[in-house]
Amino acid sequence: MIELNETLDDLQNGYYIIQKNDGFRFGIDAVLLSDFAKSATGKVMDLCTGTGIIPLLLSAKSKAVHIDAVEIQPEIADMAKRSVEYNSLQSKINVVCVDLNDAPQIFGKSIYDTVTVNPPYMRTGSGLLNETDTKTVSRHEIKCNLDDVIRVSAQLLKPHGKMFMVHRPSRLAEIFSAMREYKLEPKIMRLIAPCEDKEVNLVLICGIKCAKSDLKIMPTLYVYNKDGGYTKEIDEIYGR
Amino acid sequence: MIELNETLDDLQNGYYIIQKNDGFRFGIDAVLLSDFAKSATGKVMDLCTGTGIIPLLLSAKSKAVHIDAVEIQPEIADMAKRSVEYNSLQSKINVVCVDLNDAPQIFGKSIYDTVTVNPPYMRTGSGLLNETDTKTVSRHEIKCNLDDVIRVSAQLLKPHGKMFMVHRPSRLAEIFSAMREYKLEPKIMRLIAPCEDKEVNLVLICGIKCAKSDLKIMPTLYVYNKDGGYTKEIDEIYGR
Repeated sequence: MIELNETLDDLQNGYYIIQKNDGFRFGIDAVLLSDFAKSATGKVMDLCTGTGIIPLLLSAKSKAVHIDAVEIQPEIADMAKRSVEYNSLQSKINVVCVDLNDAPQIFGKSIYDTVTVNPPYMRTGSGLLNETDTKTVSRHEIKCNLDDVIRVSAQLLKPHGKMFMVHRPSRLAEIFSAMREYKLEPKIMRLIAPCEDKEVNLVLICGIKCAKSDLKIMPTLYVYNKDGGYTKEIDEIYGR
Repeated sequence: MIELNETLDDLQNGYYIIQKNDGFRFGIDAVLLSDFAKSATGKVMDLCTGTGIIPLLLSAKSKAVHIDAVEIQPEIADMAKRSVEYNSLQSKINVVCVDLNDAPQIFGKSIYDTVTVNPPYMRTGSGLLNETDTKTVSRHEIKCNLDDVIRVSAQLLKPHGKMFMVHRPSRLAEIFSAMREYKLEPKIMRLIAPCEDKEVNLVLICGIKCAKSDLKIMPTLYVYNKDGGYTKEIDEIYGR
């Protein structure tokens, strides 16, 4: 079940995840997103699921009843499926290897209570990229861009359904304008910084479909204390 | 020159301002906005100028060459004009009592290097408001709304001209989507909180006309220390 050049990592929540030794491995952004989305209930869709980290964390942390998870890269989707099988979660998590742009047609429109997404953060620009490298596809907007992610999330959600996303603060204006274009109103935002004297480098956003405009900004979350250890809140999120 | 029920207040920058005893008096938002906009140069437009506080502060703090200032309420515009005369700034600051929606036609399109605006923060909603009270007009979107303010700012600015605005964080998503709609790209954002354990209650935003998407988020600015005194940065902004 585990292949050469793969690791089986303990998520410390009763579940394990298969990852590549030299590939894109989940980071703190996935952990923070799943904690931010822990109020998820009912039917959940995880877009850009990668190795399936968000569904595996949400299975332990939330009251999600069923989680569909979409990943465009066959090799990565296969790892996610094997992780689901390893944890005997096949009845709860359904990993499908498709382009997220086709998800509303395949799964159905306006049927999800929650959509989660940890999309590629970086614009493709004009730099030379190896577009077949799985790490590159996970990080850069090669197979989907911000507009795709937000448009598809809005299509999949029921009215008043919630989208939870993690992204880079530098993209915040684009994120908010695209969300409002697709009637996915930004309702909660939380900035994240490595520590108090460092610049914010991640942002968590919760949008509600067809909601009124009124954004709540939570206090900035710091990952490390001045002494270099995790802050109390990060320890709590990691369940320590 | 000063009428009954008015005060003449020392701005501690060489200038004085006429305000009403019982009317809308300038607050820290105006002080923070003028500091945020202190890089203003050339031709400046201040929308919703009220008693002219932003032009008076910018005259001392920036390299603005000429400042046009628009106020829709005749009584308040008259106070602003008298403040300008009191300070002998008539050759630099030009206060005009018009609807800001008419400003591009009256003053000209794409001619300003900088637009500053401290607009009414509150939606009108359905509450009962005394729409003739000058304080109500200064605080609520009765005579102009967020879309007007941003559309007009974009029309007035030259390409690569800058808009500086202060507003409520709860309106951030609306602000960013309207700015992007009118090609006024949000480039710098700074949240402001009364102190470290209080929620943010103001936001400073700088947009550049026709710029590329890339938002820089500055560290949150705290007004008070834990001991109840002003923070060092606020003291510096007030020039103490």
